[in-house]
Amino acid sequence: MKLIQLYASMRSELQSIEDEMARTVTSDLPILSETSLHLLKAGGKRLRPVVVLLSGKFGNYSLETLKKIAVPLELIHMATLVHDDVIDDADTRRGQLTVKSKWDNRIAMYTGDYIYAKALTVITELDKPRIHQILSGAIVQMCIGEMEQIRDFFNIEQSVRNYLKRIRRKTALLIAISCRLGAMATDAPPRISNTLYTFGYNVGMAFQITDDLLDICGTEKAIGKPPGSDLRQGNISLPVLFALQDPAIRDPLLDEIKRIRAQEGQADSSAAVKLVRSSEGIGRAEKLADRYIAKAVKALESLPDIPAKRNLADIARFVAKRSY
Amino acid sequence: MKLIQLYASMRSELQSIEDEMARTVTSDLPILSETSLHLLKAGGKRLRPVVVLLSGKFGNYSLETLKKIAVPLELIHMATLVHDDVIDDADTRRGQLTVKSKWDNRIAMYTGDYIYAKALTVITELDKPRIHQILSGAIVQMCIGEMEQIRDFFNIEQSVRNYLKRIRRKTALLIAISCRLGAMATDAPPRISNTLYTFGYNVGMAFQITDDLLDICGTEKAIGKPPGSDLRQGNISLPVLFALQDPAIRDPLLDEIKRIRAQEGQADSSAAVKLVRSSEGIGRAEKLADRYIAKAVKALESLPDIPAKRNLADIARFVAKRSY
Repeated sequence: MKLIQLYASMRSELQSIEDEMARTVTSDLPILSETSLHLLKAGGKRLRPVVVLLSGKFGNYSLETLKKIAVPLELIHMATLVHDDVIDDADTRRGQLTVKSKWDNRIAMYTGDYIYAKALTVITELDKPRIHQILSGAIVQMCIGEMEQIRDFFNIEQSVRNYLKRIRRKTALLIAISCRLGAMATDAPPRISNTLYTFGYNVGMAFQITDDLLDICGTEKAIGKPPGSDLRQGNISLPVLFALQDPAIRDPLLDEIKRIRAQEGQADSSAAVKLVRSSEGIGRAEKLADRYIAKAVKALESLPDIPAKRNLADIARFVAKRSY
Repeated sequence: MKLIQLYASMRSELQSIEDEMARTVTSDLPILSETSLHLLKAGGKRLRPVVVLLSGKFGNYSLETLKKIAVPLELIHMATLVHDDVIDDADTRRGQLTVKSKWDNRIAMYTGDYIYAKALTVITELDKPRIHQILSGAIVQMCIGEMEQIRDFFNIEQSVRNYLKRIRRKTALLIAISCRLGAMATDAPPRISNTLYTFGYNVGMAFQITDDLLDICGTEKAIGKPPGSDLRQGNISLPVLFALQDPAIRDPLLDEIKRIRAQEGQADSSAAVKLVRSSEGIGRAEKLADRYIAKAVKALESLPDIPAKRNLADIARFVAKRSY
């Protein structure tokens, strides 16, 4: 099934999640509703809600229950985006002004805190302590991942392993627990929720690598922000690390990175982007993303043969091919 | 009982909470342990843990259980302080460099996020859904309070009622639920946990008013930051609002506030502080704080006559008299 058909087939469920998200972040303080709804309206792939719903098909599917997982997980993802934008000094995301640029850093920080807290009010309606423990543990790991990213800014000596460990925390874990919690909330057996976790983890790894590739290879129109933004702020991603291992590229790329660093976020990174594009880094990073996708699809094998299983495989394959 | 005696009598419990807080925020990422422990070491009155423990005496007291309330509540309080320091552009707190000034804003934001998430991992060990719901609801209100504070910066037309509503969210609620959750965690009857909530709410209101008074009347040595800091960043507190109602003070104070505003956080607020000190604002604010304390003490009346009841009354009376 093509992805657009899958989304179409889930339209009413996804709409109900969208409505619930809007209801959740609406506050009696206009500025908070405004900033939060601004973020919601910017849209997104809603990858986390989609995998929550599909994972819920392996248990006693209940949209009402799954909403209480999908809504907080997507909101937590959004809260991290607002905080990232403060850190990254980003002006646009998904083609829209960021909260920190439309309002200011202070408002962006508290908007993130608020959305995050609101997410918790929804998930705490579920009477399953294990779910809360898994979620809070994952959020801790995400924060560590964010901090590692700052620590590793402009660190050209970092290993690929270091990069993978960081994106595991920063991105893959939340997608992995989206799958696990969707299955747990609907009382699927542990064997299934663990398998779905493995699936989500591998999809998440591929997702972040693809995101990092898009930052180098995408067009501003497609990715909603200028290409090379990661590099400009010092985020050394996988294609860059691989490019640095390419003997034809290493020295000129090092010079460019040095120059970018000296200009503290104000540099033009297009020369560096061009170098990475022309290197082996792109192909090698794509290959690694494909390997994670293959692992994700393989993890699904042991699951019962229901339509959701094929849908998840479609999503995995889409993640590696996406251009936005 | 004098407060120092009370703290002495609770020393071993408080130490065990202190140890648990340190254990909780210790991470495998050195920078996060460092920033978090820097905050912990700065100390503080640990008001929330103290009232959690005392409230727990009205149920089936268990230090192990109460730790799982006291540690997260104090950590959440600390997380809000780190985020406040980002917003307030504060260089010192409790006489120590703030995280944002010792490290930077980005690190302070993620340190706050991390401590907050860590707090949740502790409280989710408790299998009482109602506790999680109350906590997440309170955190939402705190975020709204923080945002209201930004909204109301330099708003000299705001009403006293507006100020009270704001500090209720920003401060009083977390102290109120510290009392309530301490009682709930140890299975005290609802009548008691509700009464303790009322006590905590009134203590919290008095606490914030006293804090705002100290920012005007305290010495830098006693309060660990230069006096007039609130006013410098635009935070119009109760003594200032009352001073603005004092006909002898209003006009010169308005001029000073205008001047401070124009200098965007860099102004010297000592002339404004002097004006407020000489106004009726101090006495009126003290009187209102005393009224909240009287209400808090009165709320205790209906509680069983155990030592914790007298200890709570002592704390309430201390709050209004404190000079740090």
